[in-house]
Amino acid sequence: MQNQVNALPSRAVNLPMCQLLGMNSFKPAQLSFSLEGFLRRGGETGEHADGWGIALYEERRCHLLIDEQPSAQSLMAQWIQQYSTRSRNIIAHIRKATQGVVSATNCHPFMRQLWGREWSFAHNGNLDVAALPRAEHFQPVGQTDSELAFCLLLDALVRRFGETEPAPEALHEVLAETTRQIAASGTFNFVLSNGEVLFAHRSTELHYVLRAHPFGRALLLDCQLGIDFSRINHPDDRMVIIATQPLTDEAWLPLPQGELVAFAGGRRSSPLGLVGA
Amino acid sequence: MQNQVNALPSRAVNLPMCQLLGMNSFKPAQLSFSLEGFLRRGGETGEHADGWGIALYEERRCHLLIDEQPSAQSLMAQWIQQYSTRSRNIIAHIRKATQGVVSATNCHPFMRQLWGREWSFAHNGNLDVAALPRAEHFQPVGQTDSELAFCLLLDALVRRFGETEPAPEALHEVLAETTRQIAASGTFNFVLSNGEVLFAHRSTELHYVLRAHPFGRALLLDCQLGIDFSRINHPDDRMVIIATQPLTDEAWLPLPQGELVAFAGGRRSSPLGLVGA
Repeated sequence: MQNQVNALPSRAVNLPMCQLLGMNSFKPAQLSFSLEGFLRRGGETGEHADGWGIALYEERRCHLLIDEQPSAQSLMAQWIQQYSTRSRNIIAHIRKATQGVVSATNCHPFMRQLWGREWSFAHNGNLDVAALPRAEHFQPVGQTDSELAFCLLLDALVRRFGETEPAPEALHEVLAETTRQIAASGTFNFVLSNGEVLFAHRSTELHYVLRAHPFGRALLLDCQLGIDFSRINHPDDRMVIIATQPLTDEAWLPLPQGELVAFAGGRRSSPLGLVGA
Repeated sequence: MQNQVNALPSRAVNLPMCQLLGMNSFKPAQLSFSLEGFLRRGGETGEHADGWGIALYEERRCHLLIDEQPSAQSLMAQWIQQYSTRSRNIIAHIRKATQGVVSATNCHPFMRQLWGREWSFAHNGNLDVAALPRAEHFQPVGQTDSELAFCLLLDALVRRFGETEPAPEALHEVLAETTRQIAASGTFNFVLSNGEVLFAHRSTELHYVLRAHPFGRALLLDCQLGIDFSRINHPDDRMVIIATQPLTDEAWLPLPQGELVAFAGGRRSSPLGLVGA
């Protein structure tokens, strides 16, 4: 799939916390190149060796794969990179355990169903669980602050909209309001998707890059791999990649702090104005 | 893991419908041997070539893996058989599409969360969707009668018990009652698990076998593989395998027709009396 070019030696990457990755694409796509660099951060260029997980959407179905092995050595990673189907939305997470024991039950992403859609969520940061309300409609299975926060986000949607899926703007508004409430209890960097839209929120650190025509070259920061996107993409391809820290030497931007940003169709779809920041 | 012995040539296997597989084990175990035979039924000894899926429990987490490739040729199957973790409960399904388009969204097993547990479900048979009520608390993501039936089973639990998980007997009673109601609308062979208990219901065809001390030898019916369970098991190992049709030359029994049977700790835990049969 990829035309790899020789790359410069890897830069030093300093990774003190869990790592998030998100993709939203106009057309179903594979994430092989960016995923390759991302997974090195679990036990190789980073010390995040407490397991990892990925949510890959295929149509409305979310394939959720969890591995307790460090992602840099993960056989599941090799299998996914070789054989995975194409997705319009992907969420991945490399874990550095801070709350809850290291176990499959506590691995991100988490998944729930609502309004005939499968929702997935991954979080980086620490929340003060004692300061958060109890989840009502969606119950955590494990012990993490992260899964509780995910349940609270979906809870808020059910409380406000009941059984009827709202218009995108109303959905965004309630998620943004609930995100603000939860973020008051700690660090709340996250990516969230319902298979259509990818939502991202930055408390402390989260970056994104847009890839669209005209496509250029990129080099991974975590290993000696390069790619010429103009040779593998069509002019109407378009996608956004989100990551805790930039994965390539492309023009990554920090997400606005304290604002819930929505990506759909491979581009940013929310208003640019800062909310609650 | 397995000491394979030479087996007799495979028997002819006649497989006219979807295939179900379930395992409930006293201790976390791998299902490699039985799964090997089962997966041959997707496109090799059987014609069930519309995809397959498996739910593997690890602690409270349910790993749900779906593949649209015929299971006999599935790379995911090879990966699972080599690297999967040990489970106390497993559900698998090979699909012969009868309702809903062939797609990942419609592949069994299905999964939902309730009372801090992950529930998984796979079905074989056809239900008259028009005769079934609408799901209330749990919404189907795809178009199958099967996912709707699963949602209705969980719906009944929420309607009766709300947010509090009931005692096993009460849980069994409501599931059995709801199963009878749904089964009135068609053929309803299924396996269902919450990670602790494996429930199974036979409308037309479903078999089980108990494996416990003293362990003997077994030969797969679908390929030339044999195993000596006494060499790989401990005296206190104990498990039950459920399958649409027997997978080995062991003493498989048909499940009682029209009764919801529960397996826990690797043995049958429900009363033997027939209910509604």
